[in-house]
Amino acid sequence: MGLSYLVYPGVHHTRFEHAIGCLFLMQKAIDVLKFKNVKISKSESEALQIAILLHDIGHGPFSHTLEHSIAKDIHHEKISLKFMEKLNEEFKGKLSLAIKMFKGEYERPFFNQLIASQLDIDRLDYLKRDSFYSGVTEGNINSERLITMLDVVDDNLVVDKKGIYSVEKFIVARRLMYWMVYLHKTSLAAEHVLVNILKRAKYLSATEKNISCSENLNFFLNTSVSESDFNEAALAVFARLDDYDLISSIKAWMHHPDKVLSELCNSIINRKLPKVVIQNEELPESTYNKRLKNVIETLQLSEAEAKYFVFKGQISNQAYDRDNYPINIKFKKNKITDVVNASDHLNLEALTKPVVKNYSYYPK
Amino acid sequence: MGLSYLVYPGVHHTRFEHAIGCLFLMQKAIDVLKFKNVKISKSESEALQIAILLHDIGHGPFSHTLEHSIAKDIHHEKISLKFMEKLNEEFKGKLSLAIKMFKGEYERPFFNQLIASQLDIDRLDYLKRDSFYSGVTEGNINSERLITMLDVVDDNLVVDKKGIYSVEKFIVARRLMYWMVYLHKTSLAAEHVLVNILKRAKYLSATEKNISCSENLNFFLNTSVSESDFNEAALAVFARLDDYDLISSIKAWMHHPDKVLSELCNSIINRKLPKVVIQNEELPESTYNKRLKNVIETLQLSEAEAKYFVFKGQISNQAYDRDNYPINIKFKKNKITDVVNASDHLNLEALTKPVVKNYSYYPK
Amino acid sequence: MGLSYLVYPGVHHTRFEHAIGCLFLMQKAIDVLKFKNVKISKSESEALQIAILLHDIGHGPFSHTLEHSIAKDIHHEKISLKFMEKLNEEFKGKLSLAIKMFKGEYERPFFNQLIASQLDIDRLDYLKRDSFYSGVTEGNINSERLITMLDVVDDNLVVDKKGIYSVEKFIVARRLMYWMVYLHKTSLAAEHVLVNILKRAKYLSATEKNISCSENLNFFLNTSVSESDFNEAALAVFARLDDYDLISSIKAWMHHPDKVLSELCNSIINRKLPKVVIQNEELPESTYNKRLKNVIETLQLSEAEAKYFVFKGQISNQAYDRDNYPINIKFKKNKITDVVNASDHLNLEALTKPVVKNYSYYPK
Amino acid sequence: MGLSYLVYPGVHHTRFEHAIGCLFLMQKAIDVLKFKNVKISKSESEALQIAILLHDIGHGPFSHTLEHSIAKDIHHEKISLKFMEKLNEEFKGKLSLAIKMFKGEYERPFFNQLIASQLDIDRLDYLKRDSFYSGVTEGNINSERLITMLDVVDDNLVVDKKGIYSVEKFIVARRLMYWMVYLHKTSLAAEHVLVNILKRAKYLSATEKNISCSENLNFFLNTSVSESDFNEAALAVFARLDDYDLISSIKAWMHHPDKVLSELCNSIINRKLPKVVIQNEELPESTYNKRLKNVIETLQLSEAEAKYFVFKGQISNQAYDRDNYPINIKFKKNKITDVVNASDHLNLEALTKPVVKNYSYYPK
Repeated sequence: MGLSYLVYPGVHHTRFEHAIGCLFLMQKAIDVLKFKNVKISKSESEALQIAILLHDIGHGPFSHTLEHSIAKDIHHEKISLKFMEKLNEEFKGKLSLAIKMFKGEYERPFFNQLIASQLDIDRLDYLKRDSFYSGVTEGNINSERLITMLDVVDDNLVVDKKGIYSVEKFIVARRLMYWMVYLHKTSLAAEHVLVNILKRAKYLSATEKNISCSENLNFFLNTSVSESDFNEAALAVFARLDDYDLISSIKAWMHHPDKVLSELCNSIINRKLPKVVIQNEELPESTYNKRLKNVIETLQLSEAEAKYFVFKGQISNQAYDRDNYPINIKFKKNKITDVVNASDHLNLEALTKPVVKNYSYYPK
Repeated sequence: MGLSYLVYPGVHHTRFEHAIGCLFLMQKAIDVLKFKNVKISKSESEALQIAILLHDIGHGPFSHTLEHSIAKDIHHEKISLKFMEKLNEEFKGKLSLAIKMFKGEYERPFFNQLIASQLDIDRLDYLKRDSFYSGVTEGNINSERLITMLDVVDDNLVVDKKGIYSVEKFIVARRLMYWMVYLHKTSLAAEHVLVNILKRAKYLSATEKNISCSENLNFFLNTSVSESDFNEAALAVFARLDDYDLISSIKAWMHHPDKVLSELCNSIINRKLPKVVIQNEELPESTYNKRLKNVIETLQLSEAEAKYFVFKGQISNQAYDRDNYPINIKFKKNKITDVVNASDHLNLEALTKPVVKNYSYYPK
Repeated sequence: MGLSYLVYPGVHHTRFEHAIGCLFLMQKAIDVLKFKNVKISKSESEALQIAILLHDIGHGPFSHTLEHSIAKDIHHEKISLKFMEKLNEEFKGKLSLAIKMFKGEYERPFFNQLIASQLDIDRLDYLKRDSFYSGVTEGNINSERLITMLDVVDDNLVVDKKGIYSVEKFIVARRLMYWMVYLHKTSLAAEHVLVNILKRAKYLSATEKNISCSENLNFFLNTSVSESDFNEAALAVFARLDDYDLISSIKAWMHHPDKVLSELCNSIINRKLPKVVIQNEELPESTYNKRLKNVIETLQLSEAEAKYFVFKGQISNQAYDRDNYPINIKFKKNKITDVVNASDHLNLEALTKPVVKNYSYYPK
Repeated sequence: MGLSYLVYPGVHHTRFEHAIGCLFLMQKAIDVLKFKNVKISKSESEALQIAILLHDIGHGPFSHTLEHSIAKDIHHEKISLKFMEKLNEEFKGKLSLAIKMFKGEYERPFFNQLIASQLDIDRLDYLKRDSFYSGVTEGNINSERLITMLDVVDDNLVVDKKGIYSVEKFIVARRLMYWMVYLHKTSLAAEHVLVNILKRAKYLSATEKNISCSENLNFFLNTSVSESDFNEAALAVFARLDDYDLISSIKAWMHHPDKVLSELCNSIINRKLPKVVIQNEELPESTYNKRLKNVIETLQLSEAEAKYFVFKGQISNQAYDRDNYPINIKFKKNKITDVVNASDHLNLEALTKPVVKNYSYYPK
């Protein structure tokens, strides 16, 4: 959960636990579907378990935060895929079916949907887990019941109509977890600072010769790896790179002569985070400029440098995206309807609308 | 929770536990408000605790189910009030302030609102408690955080804007608990059967001379007590009447010569409940008549008698009623806005609309 | 849990929940053992589930409390057996194997041991359940881990050595639950009063003609049913008898002209329980006599009558009985040792010693 | 919890959370004691809270594991004290009373006992917390009830006799947590490897000139800081040293030319831990020598080097140490007895005996 522990001190759970949890829930889902006479072969079952176990293996340190900072414009799922393909070589093709499912290309869609859709096993695990460790009970979902309500119609994943309120709860929980936890203004600020640290380090690394850090991190600071050149060597370094590389470098950089870098690093380590404002209206250009000017003067920086400390942008969340593998409810005679239409209430219709907020920060 | 244990076997918790739980939460609320420098005198604090401890004392056996069956058209709060007034006599006026608050007549409205409003201590306890014992995690609310976010502006209860998502969760939880638990079709059916048992017993008691049951129950079967004649004697009998009187009578009536009564009693005790249908559309009169005719023929009953077994009607729930002590959110400078307007999303607006469904049942 | 709710208000869970819980745990145990390659046929598995589901069906109202009061000297397991045999007739022999296991007579002992031994499924469920509902976390056990550690050697139930500390916890938990909950002095007192109520009612029923109560209860008040004459008719009445019969009678008897009966009934219903003392030393005869004399004078009773209110006796508990289906620990090469010898500590040895305390009560 | 997460993946909770948890429990304890009319002044209350908040501040990275490896023979409490004294300077004496309590020198002993004794707030927090995060429910204690049962007699901390079983549970839980978690053989092995890494790094650092690591760690590798020379400068470096310094160094050292160092580092990072045996009997010298010889030959090491991989020693735990601030139970008339004598059972007597086991490991 990136730097969220700066807000919720209990969220130190790891991606490893999430992977194991997903595997556990997937096994339950397979049992439930088999019990309902859905045909799942032994190799399909195995592939499903492999795919979910490895679905996040491409996440780097601080996961989403640094997703586009370490390597260039590469979504973590692409990297997961690269790891799976590498493993597939080593295991002589034993992951081929899992990879097909992970890419969403298996001919029986519900396998793909269990791995990635609006109601996939991934979400069933992380919402419950993150809600538990943060203490934000608002995000707790009834994963067990949702899985029990799963079914398959025409090889597509559906939820029995008896589970419709659990689905509603699931969608609301997702919305609330975004605004209360994942997009919490203070952790957003911390994560933004982290991104800027890396940006500055890359800049310095390009201009100066020498910026001390771990070998693994050094590789990515000096090489602008894009998808096409993310070769086996890059993958090996990426596999070794973790939070320890980052944090120990940041600790060292607290004393770096570059004022921008040292200030940013100090901000994270000593939890001296910027002042953050979230509001419905856009920040007026004039306010932004005033803040920028203020930083230029106070910290005696160039405009380019000051922009590391003053920022405005947008954040948004869509609780339920009906255009993207929607959640289908199964009624009598296998009739299927999107949950929004199936609901007895318009609030789900409302929840398909994205919420956009304006976000800005500046030094306290 | 009436007969809900026929659906959720764990919900055997009692009104006593709810009363103690409310008292506990009220003490927390008082501590929070005092910590925020809201002035609450010792006698106000005491009155608040007395009022919440006793707020449900007027509930009879099977609470809401038999609310209008035992005594005529008397809401349980009127009876709670009668008990409080009786206690006030015994304790020589020490409950006067509590009674004022319970009646919603105290001059500092937030005291009244803590006892009865859209976000009162009563709801904070029962939603969490019923969710816990039923296992319906969809209804779990963050009572602790909601209480921590309480504040008072101009002597009115408000919620700090940081708690707005917890309020949203609370409103959604209430909606889901109604449809998943309180209005669950099977417990509705059971409760309706129970009401009909009492109706039939009253009818028989009026026509025949003798229908065996406990003395306490006998009183209410033979006396049509309305509010005006709910005197001290009636109150004393009412205080003694509990689930044991009802169930032991129902067990005895299983062998009563009246076929209607014995069938209904058998239906509850042996959990042979009617077939229930809940749907959006109204049940066509013709279907209803067909069902009625069927029962008349099969069970060889008169039309009046058959109506004890065939029923149609409506149920409805409004998750949030903004016209009735709304939940106000406090923004900077003590600006106050109803939570619906304060929300970043239209789903709360949607949740102010009542949902109405059509409900019918008939013997399996 | 009898009248324990007078001490722990949350313990309203029922025998039905316990039966379902046992079935659930038994299914887990079967899965675990099969996974470890223990051969269990489909009919053995079914029999095991039936036996555990029905193992407590012979419990009457207030279970252990009235075990020897309603019928004479009949252990509830005998009655469970009678019910099973009756069902076996109805189901044409389908319960024969379950009955064999329940009687401890099946040739593969671990089936019998799963149903009744020092570490059976029954205890795994009730300790955890009662600890949960009472809030006495001291009694919480790790049922899940204990079941995972189960294994079978030479057709006998064993626990893998990795589970030895979980077994120690289980034994300690059982000891603590007895002293903190099951033998809590206040609920002991209440249960003793209940037994005396029944004793007095039987006495009055024998001497006077008429003591009003439910038909079911009346049967057992007037008939001294011992094991030999516990025929089908008696069984049918027993099946209908429940807490409602008892409590509604007790409520009615509060106004009975017999002073002893009405006092005792009043004591339960209005929770005016006697003063209880538990101590290591025996109560001196002289103190007992003084108390008795005091009651004779104050309440103006005969000595025989006063003895309903003044009592002394002993209670005891043995946390672990190594002579009665002990818990065997499995070491390398399938070597088996009783847990007491297997332990790294003498505290388990200590826990095989029964603890006896002296118990007395008298009116406050 | 050091490297326990290699065994229990959930135990990623931090010392920060423990400190906050202790503060929270201490506030409860203060409320309870005040409610029982124990006199506690405002400054005493504040001192108590400061002392418990800071009691573990002297823990370095991987806490107990590296306690004697980073600095020489300095117990973490000595370092906590140094930090407190430093803070006391900064805050101009405001911590003086807290320091007195922390040192166990305050004239009212129960203040000292709340901070450090056989039943202190520290243990009440960490046992419950570690049990929760590890899932080892065997170690769960009823902290809330224990605190409620606290009292003070003659300025000494006691537990009301009603809490005696909760104390027994607490002592057993402590024993079980040691053997199941804190002394779990696999995490012991990992921690031993970690100690050896540091030992080797110090050795190399002394012989070679250059071993790359963070500046903070470098300080302690090259300086043999003992208590007397743990000056302000050393304290400042120590404060900055954390798990990140260690782990990032270990990651770097995986590629170090020294075979011993790189092997050990690889063992931790890739979780290739040694084979561990725990047994009651001492390991025969001959077996140890055979293992050593085996490693010398297989890995081609000197004997001194091989000893980094082959080890034997003892571990021990004493659940309850009655000679060291025992737990006193309060009976009627403020009579005080040590819990062992107060118990109705000899198992507590047994638990005062230390358990010693023999521990050895070697490469798989």
